[in-house]
Amino acid sequence: MAHESLYAVVMAGGAGTRFWPASRRARPKQLLPITGEQPMITQTIERLEGLVDLERVLVVTSEELAPAIREAVPQLLPENLILEPFGRNTAPCIALAAFEIERRDPNSVQIVLPADHVISPTDRFLSALDAAVHEARAGGRLVTLGVRPTHPATGYGYIRGGEKRGVQAGWEVREVSSFVEKPDAARAKEFLESGDYFWNAGIFVWETRTILAALRAHATGIYDALAGIDEPAELVRAYERVESSPIDVAVMERATNVSVVPVDFEWNDVGSWPSLADVTPADSSGNHQSGGGRLIARDARDCIVYGDEGSLIALVGVEDLVVVQSGNSVLVCPRERAQEVKAIVSQLENEAPDLL
Amino acid sequence: MAHESLYAVVMAGGAGTRFWPASRRARPKQLLPITGEQPMITQTIERLEGLVDLERVLVVTSEELAPAIREAVPQLLPENLILEPFGRNTAPCIALAAFEIERRDPNSVQIVLPADHVISPTDRFLSALDAAVHEARAGGRLVTLGVRPTHPATGYGYIRGGEKRGVQAGWEVREVSSFVEKPDAARAKEFLESGDYFWNAGIFVWETRTILAALRAHATGIYDALAGIDEPAELVRAYERVESSPIDVAVMERATNVSVVPVDFEWNDVGSWPSLADVTPADSSGNHQSGGGRLIARDARDCIVYGDEGSLIALVGVEDLVVVQSGNSVLVCPRERAQEVKAIVSQLENEAPDLL
Repeated sequence: MAHESLYAVVMAGGAGTRFWPASRRARPKQLLPITGEQPMITQTIERLEGLVDLERVLVVTSEELAPAIREAVPQLLPENLILEPFGRNTAPCIALAAFEIERRDPNSVQIVLPADHVISPTDRFLSALDAAVHEARAGGRLVTLGVRPTHPATGYGYIRGGEKRGVQAGWEVREVSSFVEKPDAARAKEFLESGDYFWNAGIFVWETRTILAALRAHATGIYDALAGIDEPAELVRAYERVESSPIDVAVMERATNVSVVPVDFEWNDVGSWPSLADVTPADSSGNHQSGGGRLIARDARDCIVYGDEGSLIALVGVEDLVVVQSGNSVLVCPRERAQEVKAIVSQLENEAPDLL
Repeated sequence: MAHESLYAVVMAGGAGTRFWPASRRARPKQLLPITGEQPMITQTIERLEGLVDLERVLVVTSEELAPAIREAVPQLLPENLILEPFGRNTAPCIALAAFEIERRDPNSVQIVLPADHVISPTDRFLSALDAAVHEARAGGRLVTLGVRPTHPATGYGYIRGGEKRGVQAGWEVREVSSFVEKPDAARAKEFLESGDYFWNAGIFVWETRTILAALRAHATGIYDALAGIDEPAELVRAYERVESSPIDVAVMERATNVSVVPVDFEWNDVGSWPSLADVTPADSSGNHQSGGGRLIARDARDCIVYGDEGSLIALVGVEDLVVVQSGNSVLVCPRERAQEVKAIVSQLENEAPDLL
């Protein structure tokens, strides 16, 4: 199934804090075995096997994260690790990768995807990507995968599907009518019932020439800043002046040649500790454990537990807690208050940045 | 105030598990900074300063704990670390120390005390010990300190005071009428109201000749096993056959020459995690922290927190929990269920003894 001109761009520059204390500046979520036994980026790259040859899998990340990425994905070709001087959201990241791939193969097609999502089963995912590749090739389209919602989620952006464009490799393809911000609960319920709205998974497929043309048209500043860069010092200067912008805002919402492939595989962006309940198995008491440590739960129920490899977390008589051990840091909070991790991180930024 | 013939015997062989995961086989409670910034044994030995010269402070412990003890109390003279091959409760420990001190000074007086209690203020404690030394010298007595109860505690053994014997160095001294096992709540209340019952703090003062005579009379097996031992191999054989017995049962309950000095300083044997609430200060939200780590408490109340030096424990929106970090182990349980730590330890003994 692997196409000779098919590239993958794995975006791995994120530095999220919602998984503190497991995630740190130098070891964000994509480098953690939050689900399964491998770091999420390792799972992401292995998932592409059979569709994209390893020699055409590129990873974009920051210089700070590069050593840990190399360690997590030793099979990655050294020249395929693209380094950003610092993060500027997804539009500059995608532009940087597009220019690099254009140099290698101007007739290429790209799959662009985040490094840290849970997707299953793999064969359905690859099949949908294959359809998206066909759609991208067929009409010079910017193609997104839109996940059919299974519940009225308020934590995701949505893609509104428009006219049906046809069928590619067995998958229906539709025009994109609009991109929609995270809705409130009432709108999310309407979205779910209408059948025309899909979760924006941040997974894109396009020809290199198509995305570059779209960047030039809709994100001219980013395009101009990153075009024709030869050396690292230039790149730093470009990143210093380039706008920080997500590709959705910089390009997708403005372009008119956008298609969506509605998909129904399991997808989760694993945005916070409580989301682990959706993507990891529970023991007989409803406790979800990941990270590679050992859990002893004595009359403990419905907890979400993460401990480093080699760690031991003992819970007695507690329920509905998030309990995280990483290095010599520990977090204990109720599941419904896990978003307050951000406040802890803010406090540490001020008081003890070495602990981040 | 220091007497030339006054020795201290610090019993530091205990291997308690109630402070798991902070306490491990190789690092039991007396070696931990459970209260204050120093290990408890360090505080215990420093507390004796001015009453007992360091050259006459002996520590009895197991071979396994010896290196950690030397590290915690570097000022201890090497020849003053008395090693038991393994633990046999307090009676053999006290006999072993008594024979050793007899060799050094047959006319000596000894203060025998546990390594891991909280006592304050020091001057009252030393003053009471001074009185006990006078009492021990005056009449060949086995003297105990009995702590006046401040609440109807069911977790301590009690000493029932009898006839008043007199006053020593400003402290009343009474005959001991009996030693009483841990009472139920109703009896504990009676004890508190009667004024004649005192907590058995396990602190004893006696002449060396007096305790040896008492051991010979009441614990003949122990006395005979440990008399005249010259070399380590003999000691191992003696410990292999000697009865494991607490001094209270082996001697104190049987002897008739027992005195008690009722004392009113703060004393706590710090028997479990919840007892830290009694011996460490609380922050404005009622959280008690020890161990040397950092605590970030966000809307967290009345928790008992212990973390290693350099650690960080973040609590959000929880209350009445015990949260302990030590190395890469973590315990989370409600304060009122902290006694179940024993069950965790038992499970680990079977399943993962390397984690103890």
